[in-house]
Amino acid sequence: MSRNLPVNAGRIAGDIEALAAITEPGHPWTRRAFSPLFLEGRAYLEARMKAAGLETRIDAAGNLIGRRTGRKPWLGTIMLGSHSDTVPDGGRFDGIAGVISALEVARALGDQAIELDHDLEIIDFLAEEVSIFGVSCIGSRGMTGQLPEAWLSRVSGGLDLARGIAQVGGEPDVLMQQKRSDIAGFLELHIEQGPVLEAEREDIGIVTAISGITRIEITVEGRADHAGTTPMDRRADALVAASQLVLDIRNAAAELAKTPGHFAATVGEFRIEPNAANVVPSKVVLLIDGRAEIRADMDAFCRWLDGHVEKLATAYGVAIETPNRVSDNLPTSGDAGLLSTLEIACVRVGARHRRMASGAGHDTAWIAKVAPAAMIFVPCRDGRSHCPDEWAENDDIALGAAVLFEAVREMDES
Amino acid sequence: MSRNLPVNAGRIAGDIEALAAITEPGHPWTRRAFSPLFLEGRAYLEARMKAAGLETRIDAAGNLIGRRTGRKPWLGTIMLGSHSDTVPDGGRFDGIAGVISALEVARALGDQAIELDHDLEIIDFLAEEVSIFGVSCIGSRGMTGQLPEAWLSRVSGGLDLARGIAQVGGEPDVLMQQKRSDIAGFLELHIEQGPVLEAEREDIGIVTAISGITRIEITVEGRADHAGTTPMDRRADALVAASQLVLDIRNAAAELAKTPGHFAATVGEFRIEPNAANVVPSKVVLLIDGRAEIRADMDAFCRWLDGHVEKLATAYGVAIETPNRVSDNLPTSGDAGLLSTLEIACVRVGARHRRMASGAGHDTAWIAKVAPAAMIFVPCRDGRSHCPDEWAENDDIALGAAVLFEAVREMDES
Ligand SMILES: NC(=O)NCCC(=O)O
Ligand SMILES: NC(=O)NCCC(=O)O
Repeated sequence: MSRNLPVNAGRIAGDIEALAAITEPGHPWTRRAFSPLFLEGRAYLEARMKAAGLETRIDAAGNLIGRRTGRKPWLGTIMLGSHSDTVPDGGRFDGIAGVISALEVARALGDQAIELDHDLEIIDFLAEEVSIFGVSCIGSRGMTGQLPEAWLSRVSGGLDLARGIAQVGGEPDVLMQQKRSDIAGFLELHIEQGPVLEAEREDIGIVTAISGITRIEITVEGRADHAGTTPMDRRADALVAASQLVLDIRNAAAELAKTPGHFAATVGEFRIEPNAANVVPSKVVLLIDGRAEIRADMDAFCRWLDGHVEKLATAYGVAIETPNRVSDNLPTSGDAGLLSTLEIACVRVGARHRRMASGAGHDTAWIAKVAPAAMIFVPCRDGRSHCPDEWAENDDIALGAAVLFEAVREMDES
Repeated sequence: MSRNLPVNAGRIAGDIEALAAITEPGHPWTRRAFSPLFLEGRAYLEARMKAAGLETRIDAAGNLIGRRTGRKPWLGTIMLGSHSDTVPDGGRFDGIAGVISALEVARALGDQAIELDHDLEIIDFLAEEVSIFGVSCIGSRGMTGQLPEAWLSRVSGGLDLARGIAQVGGEPDVLMQQKRSDIAGFLELHIEQGPVLEAEREDIGIVTAISGITRIEITVEGRADHAGTTPMDRRADALVAASQLVLDIRNAAAELAKTPGHFAATVGEFRIEPNAANVVPSKVVLLIDGRAEIRADMDAFCRWLDGHVEKLATAYGVAIETPNRVSDNLPTSGDAGLLSTLEIACVRVGARHRRMASGAGHDTAWIAKVAPAAMIFVPCRDGRSHCPDEWAENDDIALGAAVLFEAVREMDES
């Protein structure tokens, strides 16, 4: 790319490469939150923050923060950031592209000797991905007083979350006291993790909303019978009934996806019992992951589902309990003012952009509950993410970093 | 029941109760082959055989045998038997009803001072159920020279099958030398493990054929994608495709089941990858258990399946390899002469009887390959088997034992 950008694309590439090298051998690109490798990655990030002239600290929630003081700190803090932890076997760009772009904005401001009125903070949020503790967005929830206290006693491998946070340098005891109320605005750059920008040849997605995530567990109870002897018409086969349910969920979701607003529903977890060659399956437990930009869609889906499982149970002679919403987060909107700011910034750097919703959850959703927040997407190859072949072009990330740079300048002036 | 039977129903009930008490605590009624409990059960059986005046031994294949010498041993051996091992958490009557009924026939002959011309052997076959070594009918295959030599080196928990057989008293090295060629006829009593006799109020099923068992493995390969971000119409969801396959297999099997001859097909094993809440499933491996009384039905099913998976793969954008027949046993017919003998015996004891096929595999299928063999079924409650609530009425078992008794007398005379 020959664009003349206010950020240094080579520096971004170098940092992303350096972080990619800090991975579990044989499992690219794994840097799980709370692991020694995660701390190694953070040590690199902290050194780079310091080299950029930022003052570093770990906050109570275990977030790594690099700070640059502004001329009028009473205006509040402009924050940029994302996360450096990864899912297992994935995450070369997921999160880290946002942390490094944020850092690059601070470096570019320094290079150009631009002083801001606002304080600026570059943040690596702790444990955005579902970690060993089974929950996500620890750092962004913790920073904003939204980490349920009960979570602190979740245990994994002998460690509880409170000690996990303390081990990375946080102070779980003072989370609520240190809850932030000074955030003037927050921006996050992230890879899209979907195929839309690439397919439509857009540079930047301006994220109007982050879909709510609803997880629904369904148990189908049939009857274990001898697979050899039980006539086909005398069975209560839990797998057959659950298979029909999977197809019906897919079709219902595909219909809702055709209406305005992002919608998706996926059966990602599916276990059968007793899972033995010659036994008619007696039980299936499945988990639906539902995403809705528009809450009414999720409500409609759940209403349909509750009624539908009753019909299926009758048709297949099995028992299906009322679907259980094991978790249910509402959709979040990007701040209207920041969306405009981001559009102005795109125009300034000459980036083709479109508004779009995020189907994935992000730290931005938690910050958006307490302060103006918004995010941008950059294209990712084939829409693939959370896998070793996740890929984003450095030029695309650099263009996104330039958008952040221009947006920060705009935010600082308004 | 007030019938005047040539066997003692109370003695049968007592022995079945005594064996049921030899079970893993908390896991009724578990007595897994090769386990200490299995040997405990056999010690009880051997004692009861001796008390009945039988001469006991363990043969090369690890079968427990109680022998009663006839007047004209050159006529060969009439054998009766089944197995005393169980599946996990099941098998109060599966197998043991046949062993005890066989033993009761020997006792009843003794009580009535009946001498036979033939030698008579009462057999507890080793490991009829799929054991820790992953295969079934060890004893009946071994006794008849049909145990694949490679199986002897199958290992489970540090033990190989050869040592497993030796530990129960067998001599795996001389299996082929001791292959039996003296079997004049073999009969087995077994619970039906299906619902037909109970539903039709018949006492005895005369088993015309034992279905062939074909196991078919299918791998559906889709693409792992982010469940939140990947639009519904851009997925290659292996679970959705596999769900359609499960339904289609069920429907195809139900159609074949309506034609003459037992047919069933069941997907009993089904595993998805990565089985993570927010990832579109990339892979499903499933195992079909197919049963056919008539070989042409299985051939038709497999032909349909091979073509169908190709169509499904195209329709769902996934890859499905040609289904892999991991094992494939032909159906076996009951010996025509013995079937008539069993019918005569039913008439003698006044048992309502019908001819029927077995959907389950049995030791009889292996004996039938080298000698005249047949089996009878007695009703089992709700057709349930291989589960703790498996149940058969003692009067039904005793009536079956009486049929064996009469059949043995008939066989001895002809
Ligand atoms: N961005 C992202 O992958 N977040 C993980 C949570 C989810 O959306 O499934
Ligand atoms: N009789 C019986 O349950 N045999 C086990 C093998 C099978 O038929 O699945």
